[in-house]
Amino acid sequence: TGEALNFQLLFRVLGTISLLIGASMTFSLPFSLPALADRTHLPAASQVEWRAVYALLGSMGICFLVGGILRLCGRKHRGGPLYQKEAMAIVGLSWVMATVLGALPFYLSRTQIADDDPITFIEAMFESQSGFSTTGATVLTNLEDPDMVPHCILFWRSWTHFLGGLGIVVLFVAILGQGSAGKAMMRAEMPGPTKEGSMPRMQHTALIFAAIYIGLNAVLTVVYMAEGMSLFDGLCHAFGTMATGGFSTYNASLGGFQSPLIEYTTIVFMVIAGTNFTLLYLTMIGGPRRLLHDVEFRTYMLIIGGVTLAVIFFGMRAADPGFENVATSLRNGMFQVVSVLTTTGYGTADFDQWNNFGRGILLLLMFVGGCAGSTGGGMKVIRHVLFYKVLRQEIEKAHRPRVVRPLRVGGQTVDDPGLPHSIVVYFSLILAIFVFSWLLLITFEPNETWGAAAAASGDGLAAQSTLDEKLLDCASAVAATLNNIGPGLGVVGATQNYAGFSQGAKLLFVWLMMLGRVEVFSVLVLVFPTFWRRV
Amino acid sequence: TGEALNFQLLFRVLGTISLLIGASMTFSLPFSLPALADRTHLPAASQVEWRAVYALLGSMGICFLVGGILRLCGRKHRGGPLYQKEAMAIVGLSWVMATVLGALPFYLSRTQIADDDPITFIEAMFESQSGFSTTGATVLTNLEDPDMVPHCILFWRSWTHFLGGLGIVVLFVAILGQGSAGKAMMRAEMPGPTKEGSMPRMQHTALIFAAIYIGLNAVLTVVYMAEGMSLFDGLCHAFGTMATGGFSTYNASLGGFQSPLIEYTTIVFMVIAGTNFTLLYLTMIGGPRRLLHDVEFRTYMLIIGGVTLAVIFFGMRAADPGFENVATSLRNGMFQVVSVLTTTGYGTADFDQWNNFGRGILLLLMFVGGCAGSTGGGMKVIRHVLFYKVLRQEIEKAHRPRVVRPLRVGGQTVDDPGLPHSIVVYFSLILAIFVFSWLLLITFEPNETWGAAAAASGDGLAAQSTLDEKLLDCASAVAATLNNIGPGLGVVGATQNYAGFSQGAKLLFVWLMMLGRVEVFSVLVLVFPTFWRRV
Ligand SMILES: [K+]
Ligand SMILES: [K+]
Repeated sequence: TGEALNFQLLFRVLGTISLLIGASMTFSLPFSLPALADRTHLPAASQVEWRAVYALLGSMGICFLVGGILRLCGRKHRGGPLYQKEAMAIVGLSWVMATVLGALPFYLSRTQIADDDPITFIEAMFESQSGFSTTGATVLTNLEDPDMVPHCILFWRSWTHFLGGLGIVVLFVAILGQGSAGKAMMRAEMPGPTKEGSMPRMQHTALIFAAIYIGLNAVLTVVYMAEGMSLFDGLCHAFGTMATGGFSTYNASLGGFQSPLIEYTTIVFMVIAGTNFTLLYLTMIGGPRRLLHDVEFRTYMLIIGGVTLAVIFFGMRAADPGFENVATSLRNGMFQVVSVLTTTGYGTADFDQWNNFGRGILLLLMFVGGCAGSTGGGMKVIRHVLFYKVLRQEIEKAHRPRVVRPLRVGGQTVDDPGLPHSIVVYFSLILAIFVFSWLLLITFEPNETWGAAAAASGDGLAAQSTLDEKLLDCASAVAATLNNIGPGLGVVGATQNYAGFSQGAKLLFVWLMMLGRVEVFSVLVLVFPTFWRRV
Repeated sequence: TGEALNFQLLFRVLGTISLLIGASMTFSLPFSLPALADRTHLPAASQVEWRAVYALLGSMGICFLVGGILRLCGRKHRGGPLYQKEAMAIVGLSWVMATVLGALPFYLSRTQIADDDPITFIEAMFESQSGFSTTGATVLTNLEDPDMVPHCILFWRSWTHFLGGLGIVVLFVAILGQGSAGKAMMRAEMPGPTKEGSMPRMQHTALIFAAIYIGLNAVLTVVYMAEGMSLFDGLCHAFGTMATGGFSTYNASLGGFQSPLIEYTTIVFMVIAGTNFTLLYLTMIGGPRRLLHDVEFRTYMLIIGGVTLAVIFFGMRAADPGFENVATSLRNGMFQVVSVLTTTGYGTADFDQWNNFGRGILLLLMFVGGCAGSTGGGMKVIRHVLFYKVLRQEIEKAHRPRVVRPLRVGGQTVDDPGLPHSIVVYFSLILAIFVFSWLLLITFEPNETWGAAAAASGDGLAAQSTLDEKLLDCASAVAATLNNIGPGLGVVGATQNYAGFSQGAKLLFVWLMMLGRVEVFSVLVLVFPTFWRRV
């Protein structure tokens, strides 16, 4: 459509989203009350908490100011259609804006990533993007010290998971509807080839998604509380699980609870969070047979079962830590497989200590991801099913071009003639982004990042051996951020974090996390000059 | 074409190729003479050499027998057209047959891969496929001991490079012509999208390719001899260079000569070997301006220049071995970049000792490869140029579907509408093969392979640190065989070899080397049942 962007519309929608983000910050404020009321605590701590409250209020003020200005700029908007281009711009820019606005509470409260090391704005953006994109990677080295990370900031951090899992634009459409415009925007935000048409009105779809999502969060919070968590921990971990995010409120992540019950509960809800929510809705109406008829769900279950068995087999054979007997092997193996496959990234075991098969298969699983239409990130199971079928078809086409059968998925013929091409283009694009980012990282990231990690582990001899892993560590860091997993191998392993990386690398990760969460084209087009030009 | 394979034609062509391979074994026989005539040598050595001569004669007998039987089976062939399916079958099966026939001299002579460790048939196939596919990976741990590797076998080993660089089917077409059949077969053998039409008759193209190739081999042999090599070494290293193969006759590869002159000579001829031979021919006729007008050649030169500078910069900054001053840095850096980019794989420096940028960039370069229509393996420079343009176009298409410009390469519009799709399919296929092979290797290859390598290096402490590299080493081994490079990182590094791997892994490498050398579909279709069925 050789037209310029409809900037009026763009400003209006972005303004509203900014107002929504600002308003949602209020939910974090009550969680300061216990810390402020706690007279037994050091006065310094309550001073830190007060600063965080002011930081949140200040951030809200900025959100309202930005939102007001944007809506003022867009006041001349008189309806008019919304094209694909506007939808992409709205989605891409919403996420950029959300990253910056979401970083404000961290930055203004001077949250500390380590002792006497206040967060930089890039690091605050990292934490904000990691939350919204449901990656769950962190630069904070000590979550349990309220002098370093105030309570309301810790809640805001998990709350960004809640918002990100729902989808910033889905939230917008659910609240305000937008007819066909909402449909175009939701398509530009939600990754994965999803079927449409079963539910005609898009606000309806968004509301169903939101209702299931909020309902599951509520149920899980209650279950966690019944299993011994406080309201604060229950909410934060429910957000982390249902958004497939992975932020915890403890340094040892979910493993800190040392509770098989909590871990098995989390496994069940991670699996649900990685399932297509439309399918969950249809199953609630039509019974569990719907689940088994879905080729993506069947494949998803097969992967969980097959990989868990393989991980247990090789883990026990190598006598890895956590694989002492069948019970612990099942628990640790299944937890980690589900955690990585659904892209949640919670850790209960340090899988970097596993045998090389275990480490390698988890690295590959990062690229699989959950089902389309779930809150899970990654490339999505259905894309892998289609990828396999397309490649099979291409090999067949090479030797009998005239007898090739149409592509069939789950017993139905695929009627979109462009699908095979778009699938291989998508894989090619992810490959190109992965390789290019890896090259940037190994080229520009100083070796000291590995030296620091080795020094932190307290073993001087480990420094060189750690640096030897640079190539693999960088690959895993790119994979873990691009697929919204969180932890990777080596310096970004389950017991480590992203604090040691340079500011430039952190900015790269912000970009990769955004690319992973939103429909990849909606972000890539932003850097194309032609996108912004008339003609 | 819903018809069954024309097996008569298949048998005939395969029979002729078998006869040609058998006949070409005679060239190895004369190189036994010095060893047989050497009275000062231990009688045991001349016994080993005699056994090798009988092995060669026996192998020739088997080739002639197989060729005769195949031609007898195909005697009823009465012309008839050759379809794409037959061309693929001929090319795929020729390479399988050549691998097996080429393995016979190694196996029958009981060549030893280590002391008292005679080669298995799988290992002989590895060495044969490595030669024909111009990979240059080896399982022989000591080339310089004539008790272990007889002279005529060492020549046969390098001679397979000569045949493989030319192309088994190109050789066939050059000698016998085949009209349109030859064209289809050559297309099924030569990887890379090449332009056709400038030279109508295919035998002519094949003859030109063969003439340039043989001429360059002859010139390089003379140059090497002028620089101090014997005829035997000159021929073997010329084959290794011009075929971008990389087999040497010394354990220290080309680095053993310790001669900057030989190394710079090799750099120049490796660059030539990685250039499109049709372009070389046109340059000889039309002058050097043709070279610079070619977008693939320009990109190829840019990669060599750019990567060499980067490798020198990071190598000197990290004070890597071989980067002591500008002169040695230039020599070692450029040699290794050209050696890997052109997929030759000669080593003069152990690049596994370099900094992580150097190791990482060489690992990536393995996937680039030489120019299409050269003897270089890998994915080819032009495919990367096209890949970049196709992805760029797709991102543009996502935001302005109606204004997308047609694909232009080197100032010309690409007129094949199927090209963008086939490029992304090719990248997807290589990705799938790479990932699947890597998973197989990390799953089934026992850890002892790494323990043995550490033990061989004489450092007990190194064992665990070496095993930590298993994931990266396996990735580099797959990359180095699939792209026909030869050496990789770690246990398959420049100073190592493939002897330590299990027999299953060696068989996997045989398969990967064949996939890399021949047009990938010609090999993949062989395992498809539908390929062999009527309908
Ligand atoms: K995550
Ligand atoms: K090679």
